[in-house]
Amino acid sequence: MGLGVPAFPLTIVSHVLGVVATILVLVWVVNFRGGLAWDADNKQLIFNIHPFLIVFGLIVHGGEAIISYKSLPLKKEVKKLVHLGLHGAALVLGIIGIYTAFKYHNESGIANLYSLHSWLGIGVIVLYGIQWIYGFVIFFYPGGTPDVRRFSLPWHALFGLFVFVLAVGTATLGFLEKLTFLESSGLDKYGTEALLVNFTAIVTILFGVFIVLSALADAPAAAAADDYEAI
Amino acid sequence: MGLGVPAFPLTIVSHVLGVVATILVLVWVVNFRGGLAWDADNKQLIFNIHPFLIVFGLIVHGGEAIISYKSLPLKKEVKKLVHLGLHGAALVLGIIGIYTAFKYHNESGIANLYSLHSWLGIGVIVLYGIQWIYGFVIFFYPGGTPDVRRFSLPWHALFGLFVFVLAVGTATLGFLEKLTFLESSGLDKYGTEALLVNFTAIVTILFGVFIVLSALADAPAAAAADDYEAI
Repeated sequence: MGLGVPAFPLTIVSHVLGVVATILVLVWVVNFRGGLAWDADNKQLIFNIHPFLIVFGLIVHGGEAIISYKSLPLKKEVKKLVHLGLHGAALVLGIIGIYTAFKYHNESGIANLYSLHSWLGIGVIVLYGIQWIYGFVIFFYPGGTPDVRRFSLPWHALFGLFVFVLAVGTATLGFLEKLTFLESSGLDKYGTEALLVNFTAIVTILFGVFIVLSALADAPAAAAADDYEAI
Repeated sequence: MGLGVPAFPLTIVSHVLGVVATILVLVWVVNFRGGLAWDADNKQLIFNIHPFLIVFGLIVHGGEAIISYKSLPLKKEVKKLVHLGLHGAALVLGIIGIYTAFKYHNESGIANLYSLHSWLGIGVIVLYGIQWIYGFVIFFYPGGTPDVRRFSLPWHALFGLFVFVLAVGTATLGFLEKLTFLESSGLDKYGTEALLVNFTAIVTILFGVFIVLSALADAPAAAAADDYEAI
């Protein structure tokens, strides 16, 4: 985009926002919603795993994977492994996170897959999986021809940013949906918990904004040359 | 981004999706929700203006404004007027659309400004207004110096896309919020209306995706040269 801005300070802000989003979602599910459990009589504790794994797993790991080329002072091949590994972790944690939503619904007799949040969530995880497999095959093993890599790289970056933004948007829908249910059941609309959930959503959106800005910003000159050679 | 894709076919898809989104939201509020009214005993008819003006006004007009440089075979100065005018229309219709939400709440005794949708909506319209005024002053009248224009242009484009994506995301939150209220009041979660609202939201998201793709795609060569000269 020719913004003429170095990526480094933007990546620092991204790391901080990712840590803050993770802490806020943990404070919510632990201090306000009773904590996390894989098996429990109180099925809400099963649900609580869902927002934690989506924010900390899918979004924070996915965001850090996106900016790994801009934020780590390592050799290109090592950064590629970090990129692949973090996205793999994000995908696995995201799948487990989605599974816990189904587990909570099924054990509580709640309908599945009727809401826009659930539809987009399934879309995100399927696209994330396709993107990861395509990246693995073309850029890692066995690897495409130089022509295929050169053609694929801008589309890989653009599609990756699209799926990431869609993931952040879908998480935001989830925060709103859950809070709307809680407020319908009597939770104070202007109370501490409502404010906490809304601010957690806003910090998650800001994390997404700074990840995209970091991805668009200029890499250090040496790293950029390295990237170009290693396509 | 160097995608090497011409903008023209993407702008055609954008126009079609904009028309479809507008029709779908009209079918929803007219055929399922009783129609539109500025004053009515049935306050829901006042609310119905809100989604229509946000989708048709803020988002479709705003999207068309963004791609006007890529989609219109006109001289640069005319396209700039169209860009400014469509964004101005989007801003005014968006403000009226937000006003109708407050009018509906106030006449129905519903609380204002507690939800994430409302917070982000206020944020979007404020940022949209700031962006429009900045664009007017720097690129139209009185106009910045060539250096200020050259520095501002990529940021103007990036910030504009950011506000547009945030507007689409906030509209999506609105669809989910309204449908969740209706379903809490007994609307069939898998019924025709629920599917219609979810598909309207998905078409609105796809409209946003194709607007961003059109903005990133290559302008016709003559138009691109024209743009560069006329910064």
